Amino acid sequence: MIEWFDDLVLGMHFKSSDKQVTREEIKRFASEFDPQPYHLDEKAAEQTPLKGLAASGWHTAAIAMRLAVEVRPFGRHPLLGLGVDDLRWLAPVRPGDVIHIEGEVVELTSSKTKPQGIVRIKWTAFNQHGDPVYTFNPIAVVPRRPSESTAL
Amino acid sequence: MIEWFDDLVLGMHFKSSDKQVTREEIKRFASEFDPQPYHLDEKAAEQTPLKGLAASGWHTAAIAMRLAVEVRPFGRHPLLGLGVDDLRWLAPVRPGDVIHIEGEVVELTSSKTKPQGIVRIKWTAFNQHGDPVYTFNPIAVVPRRPSESTAL
Repeated sequence: MIEWFDDLVLGMHFKSSDKQVTREEIKRFASEFDPQPYHLDEKAAEQTPLKGLAASGWHTAAIAMRLAVEVRPFGRHPLLGLGVDDLRWLAPVRPGDVIHIEGEVVELTSSKTKPQGIVRIKWTAFNQHGDPVYTFNPIAVVPRRPSESTAL
Repeated sequence: MIEWFDDLVLGMHFKSSDKQVTREEIKRFASEFDPQPYHLDEKAAEQTPLKGLAASGWHTAAIAMRLAVEVRPFGRHPLLGLGVDDLRWLAPVRPGDVIHIEGEVVELTSSKTKPQGIVRIKWTAFNQHGDPVYTFNPIAVVPRRPSESTAL
C-alpha cells in the first residue's frame, strides 16, 4: 500500500476511473471561466480551428485533477502541487466523451532539509477511443515515512 | 488597436479587471473538481500546510483564464492555447481575496508554414495585497494579418 514518499517507485503506474463529459457541463464551465465560442455555441464552434464544440482546456485540466484525486496515488496524503510542467492539450474533448487518466512516476527527489520529497507523475488523459487529449506533470510534495525514533 | 499577430510587440503589457473569490465559489469548485480538505473544510484546512481554507490551484487557473479572456490581448481573435509552461502556484488564494492578472509579451514566433504566429504572454495573478499568487505562460496561436493580395 502506498502511503509515504518512500513507498513510491520509479515507473509505478496509476489508472483512474472514467468520467463522461456532458454538453451541459462544457457550457456551464465555459460560461463561468472561458466564455469563448469554441465552448459555448455549436454553430460558432464549427467555424473555429476546433471544428465543433469542445471543452475548455481548463475544464479538461479540472476534470483530470478530479480523477487524480480519486486515484489517491499517495494514499491518505492529499495532492499538494507547487506547479505543473509540460501541460499540453493534445486533442479536443467533445460532448459525450469519456475521459480517464493514466500516470507514471517519472521522478522522485528526496528533500535534503525537510522530511518530504518531490514526486513527478506524468499524467495523460485519454478519451474513449484511446486518443491522448491532455497531459500534465505536476510537482507534488509528499511526506516521508517517519523514522521509528521520530514516531515514538 | 491589437487585432493580429503582427500588432503584438515584445514587452507589451496587459492588465485585467479585478475578480473577488468567495468562500462559496471555492467550495463549489472544489466539490466538483478538487474535493480535498484544503478547499472544502475550514477546520481541516487549518491542519494542512496551507494553514486555512484556500482555492484549488485549478480554480485559480480557471479564474485567471476568465480574466485573460476579458483582457482580449488579441482583439477579436480568441485565446487558443496548445499548452502552458511554467505554471506555478505561489501563494494560497483565500476566501474574499481580490485577484487580477497582468501579462507581458515575452516571445513572438512567426510560423514559416502557416499564416499565424505563436505568442507567449507571461501572466501573473496578484491578490489585493499585491502578492503574486499564480503565474502561467500559455502557448497561444494568433493569425497573421492577411496581405493585401490575400485579402482581395
